[in-house]
Amino acid sequence: MTELHREGLLTPREAIDPVHDGTGRVEVRLRTSDGTERAVRVPPGVSVFDAASWNGVAIDSTCGGHGTCRKCKVQVAQTAPVTSHDRRTFSEGEIEEGWRLACLVKATADLQVEVPPLTTRPKAATVGVGRQVILRPAVQKRYVELDEPSLSDQTTDVERLRAALIDLDFTCGLAVLRRLPKVLREADFKVTAVVADEQLIDIEPGDTTGVRYGLAFDLGTTTVVATLLDLETGTPAAVASTLNRQQPFGGDVITRISATMLDGEALSRLQSAAGSTLAELADEVCQEAGVDPAHVYEVALAGNATMTALVLGIDPEPLGVAPFVMSTAAFPGVAAADLGLKVHPRAPAYVFPSLGAYVGGDIVAGMLASGLDRDKRLRLFVDVGTNCEIVLSDGHRIVSTAAPAGPAFEGGAIRCGMRAADGAIETIALHPDGPPAEGAPVVELGVIGSTDEAPLTPRGLCGSGLVDAVAELVRVGLLDSTGRFVPDADVASIAPALADRMGRIGEERVFVLAGSLPDAVVLSQRDVRELQFAKAAISTGWSLLLDEMGVAPSDVQQVLLAGSFGSYLSPAAAVRIGLVPSLPVLRIVSAGNVAGEGAKMALLSVQERNGAAALTEEVTYVELSDRADFNDRFVEQLAF
Amino acid sequence: MTELHREGLLTPREAIDPVHDGTGRVEVRLRTSDGTERAVRVPPGVSVFDAASWNGVAIDSTCGGHGTCRKCKVQVAQTAPVTSHDRRTFSEGEIEEGWRLACLVKATADLQVEVPPLTTRPKAATVGVGRQVILRPAVQKRYVELDEPSLSDQTTDVERLRAALIDLDFTCGLAVLRRLPKVLREADFKVTAVVADEQLIDIEPGDTTGVRYGLAFDLGTTTVVATLLDLETGTPAAVASTLNRQQPFGGDVITRISATMLDGEALSRLQSAAGSTLAELADEVCQEAGVDPAHVYEVALAGNATMTALVLGIDPEPLGVAPFVMSTAAFPGVAAADLGLKVHPRAPAYVFPSLGAYVGGDIVAGMLASGLDRDKRLRLFVDVGTNCEIVLSDGHRIVSTAAPAGPAFEGGAIRCGMRAADGAIETIALHPDGPPAEGAPVVELGVIGSTDEAPLTPRGLCGSGLVDAVAELVRVGLLDSTGRFVPDADVASIAPALADRMGRIGEERVFVLAGSLPDAVVLSQRDVRELQFAKAAISTGWSLLLDEMGVAPSDVQQVLLAGSFGSYLSPAAAVRIGLVPSLPVLRIVSAGNVAGEGAKMALLSVQERNGAAALTEEVTYVELSDRADFNDRFVEQLAF
Repeated sequence: MTELHREGLLTPREAIDPVHDGTGRVEVRLRTSDGTERAVRVPPGVSVFDAASWNGVAIDSTCGGHGTCRKCKVQVAQTAPVTSHDRRTFSEGEIEEGWRLACLVKATADLQVEVPPLTTRPKAATVGVGRQVILRPAVQKRYVELDEPSLSDQTTDVERLRAALIDLDFTCGLAVLRRLPKVLREADFKVTAVVADEQLIDIEPGDTTGVRYGLAFDLGTTTVVATLLDLETGTPAAVASTLNRQQPFGGDVITRISATMLDGEALSRLQSAAGSTLAELADEVCQEAGVDPAHVYEVALAGNATMTALVLGIDPEPLGVAPFVMSTAAFPGVAAADLGLKVHPRAPAYVFPSLGAYVGGDIVAGMLASGLDRDKRLRLFVDVGTNCEIVLSDGHRIVSTAAPAGPAFEGGAIRCGMRAADGAIETIALHPDGPPAEGAPVVELGVIGSTDEAPLTPRGLCGSGLVDAVAELVRVGLLDSTGRFVPDADVASIAPALADRMGRIGEERVFVLAGSLPDAVVLSQRDVRELQFAKAAISTGWSLLLDEMGVAPSDVQQVLLAGSFGSYLSPAAAVRIGLVPSLPVLRIVSAGNVAGEGAKMALLSVQERNGAAALTEEVTYVELSDRADFNDRFVEQLAF
Repeated sequence: MTELHREGLLTPREAIDPVHDGTGRVEVRLRTSDGTERAVRVPPGVSVFDAASWNGVAIDSTCGGHGTCRKCKVQVAQTAPVTSHDRRTFSEGEIEEGWRLACLVKATADLQVEVPPLTTRPKAATVGVGRQVILRPAVQKRYVELDEPSLSDQTTDVERLRAALIDLDFTCGLAVLRRLPKVLREADFKVTAVVADEQLIDIEPGDTTGVRYGLAFDLGTTTVVATLLDLETGTPAAVASTLNRQQPFGGDVITRISATMLDGEALSRLQSAAGSTLAELADEVCQEAGVDPAHVYEVALAGNATMTALVLGIDPEPLGVAPFVMSTAAFPGVAAADLGLKVHPRAPAYVFPSLGAYVGGDIVAGMLASGLDRDKRLRLFVDVGTNCEIVLSDGHRIVSTAAPAGPAFEGGAIRCGMRAADGAIETIALHPDGPPAEGAPVVELGVIGSTDEAPLTPRGLCGSGLVDAVAELVRVGLLDSTGRFVPDADVASIAPALADRMGRIGEERVFVLAGSLPDAVVLSQRDVRELQFAKAAISTGWSLLLDEMGVAPSDVQQVLLAGSFGSYLSPAAAVRIGLVPSLPVLRIVSAGNVAGEGAKMALLSVQERNGAAALTEEVTYVELSDRADFNDRFVEQLAF
């Protein structure tokens, strides 16, 4: 302890403040009653309670770390500041022994913490990429039976309720105040308080604690997914998805931003298109699960920065033109009603914060769902799409960037490109020396929606099919490493069984995947170039991030392929064309809809939500268009 | 310093916490650079900055005590906790010498504070009962010229603005976020931020810092007064008053509460009647002063508990029936729009908190305006009306109650009663032994609206006329101390010149004030009884408060008569009938419309507003209907 501290001139917190190391993180060692110890590294200032929750170590609590329930007792080996809550909870002797409330101890230096056995078994749910989340939704309900007022007890209705909600504090806005006196008296002062974060959003007659729902949205540029979650159990009650009704304004974020720049009315039309998409899905899941929309008390939404701006009615223009600036990273105080939703009229909406104009809330949600910052392995997260977001983390440092991959992966600008819908070729295997078996084709195709009983005629090529086609043509040698089809003269010797598949449309060379020219489904030379540019942009992105962190591609221990496209992509093909570092395919994992999973986590746990906010503080965003070495690197990465 | 403190187990704040004395207040001695010292007593926990501001001692500050501008430097003789803000502001040597930021030092024990000379001259205004208020409105404007974003500086719009507003912090809601990107860019990043408390309520192109208005309302049951205040200078720009449009529902709060109990639609009709009254006045003052209503950025409203509930659309029923419970004492988060006002769309509304169902926000505002808690004299505050609110303070302890005076003072239930309008008799002097001068009347009347040039015929008797009439009749002996007219036989000997004024209507004895029976303006025996009951209720109220505080009526150093009625009342008459303690008339002061003055103060100074909140914590409310000794005392007080 310093001299200043002993003299009372330093608060205890400041006394331990300057200790944390260079990585910007501090270590909290949590020892549980079964003797196991877990060391977790968190940003300085995170509470011991949050640090434990984020890492699946349960500590008793009913208030969720708001300093009100006084149940999260832990024993800290280091001298930690004493709050008035600690003083009301512990004896002087206990305080001397290091007992503190975990939610009030900030980890500003390395700490050693003993976690006593739980007195209640916390509920948990598995969400995201195998993450175990301890249930502590922002939405809390408490049933109370209040003493009726009397001349000797004229406590106001609000204070009477506050006194009864021992483990929750709240503010009460005008709308609830207008209901409160009547509901209390009509229900004989036996009511259920609904508190979301620190707002009293409703007061319901009788005991309604069993009914508590939330809605998680993944608002994609193309597809929107809604999950209705039972917040009591953490389980999904219904899931639905549909196309984003903004489609008529253009397929990607840039065309939609452009629309708002050309037409003064477009922003409000885009806003209501997104809102009505969400509303339609909300109706659908509530109906399917038989849930009254008024029992949906909170909404969480993950979307890229443009989708988030548009659904909130915020001018997206600065996102679309250099220097690509967001109006805000975080969105406090948004209500479900602001998103056009008719759920509980005072339901708040948690909108995921964004890291940058092109690393949006969907990526923050994905990082949360995949626990990217809670793992000491070197992991690369790639969300493949028109705009490709890339994040690299070793659990201490996290760097991210966005690569403009162009529309190749969405089927745009590709001659026979189409969305991943029925009739799209999604996998391709080539047999250059003849059929692998009697009667088998030399060009083996996987077609979406096709079955052995009812085969579909291929109609086009989706993004994953494109990657597979190029990867296979590179593998068999019909495409050279510069991405050019080999001369006609060499085809027969390189791939005799596929020679008749090479052809031309006009001057352009093509490879016939299905059907016969001129109506065939083909891969053209220009298609190869499009994909080549896209993969070069992406691999330039992650290779610059690897440099930034000072590690080699082979050091990467896991690649998470995210987004609807990434989930379809064959890991082997992705490696072969160089879209991801050259690694054993087992290290390459399809992560699925991680944005939607992150949104669910935010509904189920305020600790996880705090984790998302911490992420935005921690991640270093690297702007590619500002890098002098981008072009050199890009040219390097063009080769297959 | 205690052992625990030295060991870092007690925060410094807690170390000095338990010292304050039994009165519940602590003393802050402020010595200014001119050598004068001022000792002020405040509730523990109040900041030194607020304590000084409340008592007219100016300390440098631009942020108004929010801990952001770091200008409010003072030197504290006692060891005070050091915050991180102090550490950033002062050198270690200065901290050791006791330098601290005044807004962060809480007076939890008696303190001696040196206040350095001001570097800027603070603006101040005189409001309330001669109170000097240092201008620091909740509404602040700052003109900033921001650096434009670039690829090497992609800070979000919100954070760019935040970084420029060094002395103010804010949150930015969705509505402003929707405007922000466009306004910033269209104005070349030269904008004025409008922050009300910690909310960014608008962003205006260019420099608009000179234009800043607020609206103060006194929402009375009968009369509503609006004052448009220039927040730059603290001066009123226009004042207007009108009758409350709720009048058709009944003249007093009880009839209006009853209306809502009988008719399910009445609450919303009463709400919109009050709202439209406020809106009409807002239009009127803005037009008169030539001010755009959009430049009114905040509203303050003082009203009794019922008026406040009705204008906010809160069910008033619990206020009207035993045990007389408020739904809430304070009203956080109310917007001007919630009051039906079309001023700035995001203007907040500060609604004065209430102490009890019958000691409302109007009284809290009145206590603030009269500085009732900032004065060591024993002072009695009486707001005379249908419901009479009484507060007694010695600057340390404050006790209050409400007395049901009935409608006598509003002219209701009085035979010739009328409102204080043109034609109402408001003063009376009787000359029982004949005219005081040649040609002068034996019954001298002051009539509202009457002039020597254009005398008005008296039409009736308003409240103050009623008190005067009874007081004069008691003085001359025509009413005995039990309130009964003396026998007819004794009249001629007691007051020969007034004998012909005594008469009868039916069985009831009356005194003719003007005109001739049966159309005369009279005071009847029943009128006397009404007033007698009202004054008994009031004097029972203050006498019980004097007992509560253990002081005698003669100890009272000042009586403040408040409310529109109290302001008209003749101090001498009030003493004669026993409405106030028997004191020299110089100690009895008409305080005027103190509720309206309090509302103005709340607009001009956040410190004063904090003072109002502190008052609600400090005042002890005494419920009369719960007192066993009320009836005995009441009977005692019936006598004149």
